[in-house]
Amino acid sequence: MDGNILAFIKQNHKVWKTLENDPIFAHNPLKPTLEEARSRTMQQVLRVLQHKFLSEDDLMENPTLENSLMMALGQYDWSLGARISLLFLFFKNTIRGQGTAHHYDLMDKVDNAEITGCFCLTEVSHGTNSRALRTEARYDPVLKRFVLHSPDFEAAKVWVGNLAKAATHAAVFAQLITPDETCHGLHCFIVPIRDQHTMLPFPGVIIGDMGEKLGLNGMDNGYMMFDHYTIPREALLNKSGDVDEDGVYVTPFKDPNKRFGASLGNLSAGRVGIVSMCVTNMIKVLPIAIRYSAVRRQFGVGTGEEIPVIEYQMQQWRLFPYLAATYAMKIFGDYLFHEFVNHVMLSMSGSDKEVGAARGAEIHAVSSAAKPLAGWLARDAIQECREACGGHGYLRAAGIGPMRDDNDSNCTYEGDNNVLLQQASNWLIKLWGEYSSGRTLVNEGPLGSLSFLNNVGQTLSSTFNPNSSHRDLLRPETLLSAYKWLVCWLLKNSAEKFQVLSSQGVDPFTAKNNSQVYRARTLTLAYIEHFVLERFLHKIQETPNSDGVRDVLTKLFLLYGYWSLEKQLAFLYQGGYAKGPLAATLIRETILSLCEILKQDAVAAVDAIAPPDFIINSCLGRSDGQVYKHLQAAMMQTPKGFERDECWQDLAKLFQSKM
Amino acid sequence: MDGNILAFIKQNHKVWKTLENDPIFAHNPLKPTLEEARSRTMQQVLRVLQHKFLSEDDLMENPTLENSLMMALGQYDWSLGARISLLFLFFKNTIRGQGTAHHYDLMDKVDNAEITGCFCLTEVSHGTNSRALRTEARYDPVLKRFVLHSPDFEAAKVWVGNLAKAATHAAVFAQLITPDETCHGLHCFIVPIRDQHTMLPFPGVIIGDMGEKLGLNGMDNGYMMFDHYTIPREALLNKSGDVDEDGVYVTPFKDPNKRFGASLGNLSAGRVGIVSMCVTNMIKVLPIAIRYSAVRRQFGVGTGEEIPVIEYQMQQWRLFPYLAATYAMKIFGDYLFHEFVNHVMLSMSGSDKEVGAARGAEIHAVSSAAKPLAGWLARDAIQECREACGGHGYLRAAGIGPMRDDNDSNCTYEGDNNVLLQQASNWLIKLWGEYSSGRTLVNEGPLGSLSFLNNVGQTLSSTFNPNSSHRDLLRPETLLSAYKWLVCWLLKNSAEKFQVLSSQGVDPFTAKNNSQVYRARTLTLAYIEHFVLERFLHKIQETPNSDGVRDVLTKLFLLYGYWSLEKQLAFLYQGGYAKGPLAATLIRETILSLCEILKQDAVAAVDAIAPPDFIINSCLGRSDGQVYKHLQAAMMQTPKGFERDECWQDLAKLFQSKM
Repeated sequence: MDGNILAFIKQNHKVWKTLENDPIFAHNPLKPTLEEARSRTMQQVLRVLQHKFLSEDDLMENPTLENSLMMALGQYDWSLGARISLLFLFFKNTIRGQGTAHHYDLMDKVDNAEITGCFCLTEVSHGTNSRALRTEARYDPVLKRFVLHSPDFEAAKVWVGNLAKAATHAAVFAQLITPDETCHGLHCFIVPIRDQHTMLPFPGVIIGDMGEKLGLNGMDNGYMMFDHYTIPREALLNKSGDVDEDGVYVTPFKDPNKRFGASLGNLSAGRVGIVSMCVTNMIKVLPIAIRYSAVRRQFGVGTGEEIPVIEYQMQQWRLFPYLAATYAMKIFGDYLFHEFVNHVMLSMSGSDKEVGAARGAEIHAVSSAAKPLAGWLARDAIQECREACGGHGYLRAAGIGPMRDDNDSNCTYEGDNNVLLQQASNWLIKLWGEYSSGRTLVNEGPLGSLSFLNNVGQTLSSTFNPNSSHRDLLRPETLLSAYKWLVCWLLKNSAEKFQVLSSQGVDPFTAKNNSQVYRARTLTLAYIEHFVLERFLHKIQETPNSDGVRDVLTKLFLLYGYWSLEKQLAFLYQGGYAKGPLAATLIRETILSLCEILKQDAVAAVDAIAPPDFIINSCLGRSDGQVYKHLQAAMMQTPKGFERDECWQDLAKLFQSKM
Repeated sequence: MDGNILAFIKQNHKVWKTLENDPIFAHNPLKPTLEEARSRTMQQVLRVLQHKFLSEDDLMENPTLENSLMMALGQYDWSLGARISLLFLFFKNTIRGQGTAHHYDLMDKVDNAEITGCFCLTEVSHGTNSRALRTEARYDPVLKRFVLHSPDFEAAKVWVGNLAKAATHAAVFAQLITPDETCHGLHCFIVPIRDQHTMLPFPGVIIGDMGEKLGLNGMDNGYMMFDHYTIPREALLNKSGDVDEDGVYVTPFKDPNKRFGASLGNLSAGRVGIVSMCVTNMIKVLPIAIRYSAVRRQFGVGTGEEIPVIEYQMQQWRLFPYLAATYAMKIFGDYLFHEFVNHVMLSMSGSDKEVGAARGAEIHAVSSAAKPLAGWLARDAIQECREACGGHGYLRAAGIGPMRDDNDSNCTYEGDNNVLLQQASNWLIKLWGEYSSGRTLVNEGPLGSLSFLNNVGQTLSSTFNPNSSHRDLLRPETLLSAYKWLVCWLLKNSAEKFQVLSSQGVDPFTAKNNSQVYRARTLTLAYIEHFVLERFLHKIQETPNSDGVRDVLTKLFLLYGYWSLEKQLAFLYQGGYAKGPLAATLIRETILSLCEILKQDAVAAVDAIAPPDFIINSCLGRSDGQVYKHLQAAMMQTPKGFERDECWQDLAKLFQSKM
């Protein structure tokens, strides 16, 4: 085990133990009101700052501990993790990424918690299409200041975490307009929004709380409008464009598109983080359903003893593929984070720019594909666990519902899942076009996600060997070969659809939109699933096989792979890779037999990754397996659970009136 | 339009208008606390009783108005609809179904709201396997009373709606034990549990509130334990078994299994009701997402005006199949309810018993298959609508989250979805066995759900015509033929798997369990989808084609059908019905082209079924299409939305300490 992992584990346990022993972090048996949720998380933020979990020394030695700390806090409660992350880290990174030397003192202030920040991009009527945002920053050469203005409510900044209650400063994206009335596009400004003594917004700034959400209610998402609010010229983060005192615009970028890309900064960070967030949710929910299934008994053979529901093939099939997906995505999330950090480091160190650009583009595509995959896997895993725990899973005390509510947003923010898939597919289809016209793409995939492009011709003419026996399917190569074929075929098929539409005179915007469903969308999912599987296999190969760990991991690898592939089985037939009943029969039998043999390892496999009981916080999923004891305790601790309804007298009166 | 439908519509609008004008039914911008939710719904129950929506005359003329009233109340809030339904209707039906003449005065008392009831079957450690319930009812010949006792917490009655706060009486299922220590199995007792003057439980009865659930928190689900609590001998609902004064057990049933079946009563009622509940949720959620998609604009061709997101093929494909499913399931739910009522009437009138039994068995199977289909369709429709509304869909004010939470339980109660599918498949496979051995099954499907069994041989040897053009697929027969093949093939395949396992010496319990995944489970879903489609087509054929209504319905029929079939496409290949790329390509192109042509009708199609704005209660889904106006109003009405955090001074102090 490498030093980083040990440091992470040590930190996690220190953090979790501290939270468990601090009453301000005690779990509430009832959902708090909106006001309580906001305020409680704010108090927890302040307490976390006091605890100083990360020393400067630790951080110097291992900068990724900061991210790991956010994940540990998030696994307790995502509102808390996200609030701290956005108030400090994300805000600082925005300044670092787009500011210049005269902004660096702001970064120190963030580090010292002298100021707190939030990130304002989305507006009421524009999210996905960020170029169309309408907040204005007009430079006034007389005042020598920018005048921020929101033309109407639709241009209000919205969905801004920490804005409603906590941030003193905001990173605001606005259309920069010079005195000659030229609009230079979106730029980012650091805007003081609140008086730090009174915590009231400054005049000219209107801030409100957006109200209750489905989850993450400890996070105070707010909206903000500006009414001709002026800020100094230096508030502009001016790395990619600046305005001089007289209002003349200067930029090092000749192509405005490139400047826009640079000004948005590296949004991959958010997507990489969300992959890990989804993984931690899966790590939290699978132990609940699998431990419960090992204890819950229902029916049995004849009049014999009732059997645990985990013995049922159906229950195994409902849960174990998600257990396998949890391992697959955990390994992948760690890998992706590592590669992302590595990429940022290399970019800062000024290494080979061409390789760096290729790696950046690949990480953009990989994270744009992995975030939807992880978001939906976590969504579906949580829902399946909820249903697999039956009625008891419907209790808030089971801990599954709050996770569903919090995870839900992962499918939307930092890019709607379907939109992100389209972005990643655009890159794949573009590369395919270049590849088809003879260009070598060796350098385009430094991470190796394009390995399926090796020998495309051979791959596309390969078929699922109809003589394959069940045993053949247990070879990882069989699975990966099928996936390689699937990705290549979908890529070819999607690109052809786009070309056909284009040749019919359809504009590129529409042609792209109309080659998504059943094509580019599926392609991107298959592409990332294949890459996830390759990384999983790589990890297995470097894992020592003590106590049969490698064997269990291999079964999980195969189960995740075939279960995912099975959903795309029709494509294997459509494209001629499979013929006749054998492929479907063998793949499905393999899934079921893997479920069966994993039964004996399933509880150990969740125990190996589960956080402590305090963090999972489920009466059904405690590590001691005492389901009914904890269920009883949870039910009996219902506040006012033994009291009458507030209006019981009205009911009694009704009965009396009839007597 | 027939008279019933007019009466329903009239009643719905009367009910909804009344609720809208009564402040006790005003919507709350925040989720209420558990205590508020319980109490508020209780007060609403009392108010509904005062409103007397149903006169005796109306009810005499049309008894199904009672059910329609529950749906209208439920569409406002399922906690309210379910509480009234369980307190009165369901309780009365239990007494009617299992009691004898000396219990009928209880029914009058329920009608007059002199008493209120709840239904206690499930226990902490047993739900699905109800035969294994452990609450005891031991007859004491000295006291001439039954002694109810819960041996431990695992035997506590649980998940009982109205138990925690509102019911004065309970229908309790317990193992009847005579003085000779013989256990005669589960029987139902009407048990007084609360003093009607104080609303406190009687001594010997322990009642608690189960605590917060993911949804339906206006419903006071409770748990109950008995401590040697005695009740009169007459408390036993004795239609299917009785105990005389001396403790001798008498029953008209020779086969204890049949008595058990009779004592559980007709559980189809619950499943039939849930199908309609799921449909009303779909009717409530689709208007939100489709109206929003018609207003929300994002991107456009080149620099042109932004287009509504409903123009995107992806958005159409995400939403329109669920719109089609809503129409399909609405028609089916109404049909099933009608057939169920008809069945109950015919059974009471003592018509042909053999046909009645066959019809009862078919309704059991159809409702056991339709409930999971409806539950999952509603679950997925709600989730897709949530995601399709982007971030704004994550606001509670969008109205989608509360629906998700309430609908979730539909996948679990009255039988876990997967367990119900297995029950229905048991019936199908049993019939198949008889059919295969030459028996005619004409009389086994009075509803017609077995129509796929006509010409099985011919169906199984048919293939998807490889010369089919896109136009061919638009003929309903093409779709239904494919479905017929699919159902027959899955039935044959499932039965064969069961036989193979049995011939290998596997016991029937295990053999059944191990032929579910990819077989009997899929079979049952395909069986019910096929029947839903047949009923849909039947409805279309009897609909006059004014204003092109029949054309729109036909498109919805085809879209729902092919979209459902596409998910099982691999089976068509596996079984040899389809070969080569054509089937997959044509079916998928048909789905996308149906989406495209339905675009112009989509808003009208949701407007036609949508309840009033007050009932939908969504800032995104109002009928006037003023999305941003209502969104602004919702956000600005957030309680304390413009106030500082409760702990703002702590934050300000932090900053001051750094200055």
